[in-house]
Amino acid sequence: MGGDNAPDMVVAGIDIAHKTLRDVDFLLFGDRAKIDPLLDAHPKAREVCTVHHTDQAITDDAKPSTALRSGRESSMRLAINAVGTGQAAGVISSGNTGALMAMAKFVLKTLPGIARPAISTYFPTQRGESVMLDLGANIECDADNLVQFAVMGEVFARHVLGLDQPSIGILNVGAEGLKGNEAVKQASAILQESALPIKFHGFIEGDDIGAGIVDVIVTDGFTGNIALKMAEGTAHMLARFLKEALTSSVLARLGAALMWPALNTFRRRIDPRRYNGAMFVGLNGICIKSHGGTDELGFANAINVAADLIRRDFNEKIKEDLERLISEPPEPKAAVV
Amino acid sequence: MGGDNAPDMVVAGIDIAHKTLRDVDFLLFGDRAKIDPLLDAHPKAREVCTVHHTDQAITDDAKPSTALRSGRESSMRLAINAVGTGQAAGVISSGNTGALMAMAKFVLKTLPGIARPAISTYFPTQRGESVMLDLGANIECDADNLVQFAVMGEVFARHVLGLDQPSIGILNVGAEGLKGNEAVKQASAILQESALPIKFHGFIEGDDIGAGIVDVIVTDGFTGNIALKMAEGTAHMLARFLKEALTSSVLARLGAALMWPALNTFRRRIDPRRYNGAMFVGLNGICIKSHGGTDELGFANAINVAADLIRRDFNEKIKEDLERLISEPPEPKAAVV
Repeated sequence: MGGDNAPDMVVAGIDIAHKTLRDVDFLLFGDRAKIDPLLDAHPKAREVCTVHHTDQAITDDAKPSTALRSGRESSMRLAINAVGTGQAAGVISSGNTGALMAMAKFVLKTLPGIARPAISTYFPTQRGESVMLDLGANIECDADNLVQFAVMGEVFARHVLGLDQPSIGILNVGAEGLKGNEAVKQASAILQESALPIKFHGFIEGDDIGAGIVDVIVTDGFTGNIALKMAEGTAHMLARFLKEALTSSVLARLGAALMWPALNTFRRRIDPRRYNGAMFVGLNGICIKSHGGTDELGFANAINVAADLIRRDFNEKIKEDLERLISEPPEPKAAVV
Repeated sequence: MGGDNAPDMVVAGIDIAHKTLRDVDFLLFGDRAKIDPLLDAHPKAREVCTVHHTDQAITDDAKPSTALRSGRESSMRLAINAVGTGQAAGVISSGNTGALMAMAKFVLKTLPGIARPAISTYFPTQRGESVMLDLGANIECDADNLVQFAVMGEVFARHVLGLDQPSIGILNVGAEGLKGNEAVKQASAILQESALPIKFHGFIEGDDIGAGIVDVIVTDGFTGNIALKMAEGTAHMLARFLKEALTSSVLARLGAALMWPALNTFRRRIDPRRYNGAMFVGLNGICIKSHGGTDELGFANAINVAADLIRRDFNEKIKEDLERLISEPPEPKAAVV
């Protein structure tokens, strides 16, 4: 029931995703009176959907603590419960991010060794795709949180992006060791000196992200959320400037018509809907946050992200890797005598 | 002597800027052996330049404290001193940002009521141009710092962008009052409740910047630096994707040729060199930081920013406005009885 266009885009999104995900069934939690007519309009979706009715829904402005306390019968909570009981393999929501994280943490619990889960997504760079975390779950982070994000991001990049040895960078205001706040300086020192078998690049700056300098970008949730939305806003602004240029004269319009297929490829390449579906990493269960303002195409992509993680048995892999990395660190590097 | 292409781009930049700034003379501080041949190659620039020789230069990796202590004869320090003594009306440097800020603060001092100066720049949005501060001078900021940035940014937007009543937003991870860290929440409360005659919009998110929702964006230097560089990196990545699309087929190349003038307008509109030249606001003197990696066009723009601020008597205006805003606040809003 969460998001600007729910439940319409949820059902329409299932209709799209179902075409390539033939073996996936969906449990829909929410207001049956609103959902049923939508399923009537999408008979293919109806075949794979079961509706669990509830009147209660978490509003976008609800405080996480309030949602947790008084939202026990909400569509969001019931959907998360279904993952907790094993009835569902994963949960997807376009609703209130803070409430979703609080409830998911409460119901599913965090993985051993992880103090706080993080929101993570991947997005395009000049070299391919990178993973970034945290994107807003943790407003203030200490060095240990950032180190755990680095480890989780590494596992994510290895299993989801299929990279052999992903490189990890900590987002900072300069590449030199003496710059930045205490948390990033300490986290960098820990990762530099640790014997963890991960490839730590060091600090990176904001413009290194689009250049694809590293595969995993580690940052606190405040900075990460703002940086990601700044990129979205910049892309949106440039797309509009480009559109104005393409329609500014008869010659430009003619040129644009000739290069229509090429422009379409460009548009698809940067379409934010293709990158919709952020994963909560560090939880004992698959939980995907869809952008609240997305449409059915974006929601279908969030479904694909969830299905992909489930199919790859991602959570078992991250658990194994974390246990290996955190509880049984390899021999420390030889000390300089 | 600072920046990747100095002093070449400095002299070449003066040569460009001089064409429209006929009444401006330049004092060049640095290695005469390197500068003199460049002035020979730019006879027009030589006419308006006086070289003050020094062997010492601040390196890019120098700590601000070290630069301050042992860089007393450096080109950067001597250039700032010239502003302190009134010999120069303003200083422009492409060198080490931290050292420039530390020295400028030491020599020029901050304005009354300002605890810490901020780095500020303006950049394009869908609605025109906005001002953002801080962009990296202050890694950690408390609520009072942010409130002072808001006041300085307001004055900047009024006098430099020529806006009647610029609106001010604090960058945050959500628009609701309960989101964010303590500093932004407190700063927002202070600005909401204050009787300052400024138009406080409230919180904005990263994607509101490009949309031009507010005229002044207030943030701490850590977040601001990363957000600005993230925007630069995104623009760079999209420009490359677009170039790939425009050259992807014969038809696309033909289309691109037809719309060459329109594409050029687009390119100029987002050219980062047009936005080069960040101002240190809150200092008792005009101090402009040019991007270290810029070329002569970018440096010429930084010169234009400095000349514009000097011509508008910006520092006197900001001083007057700050005194009015901070020392003599108007009557508080009527209390609810």
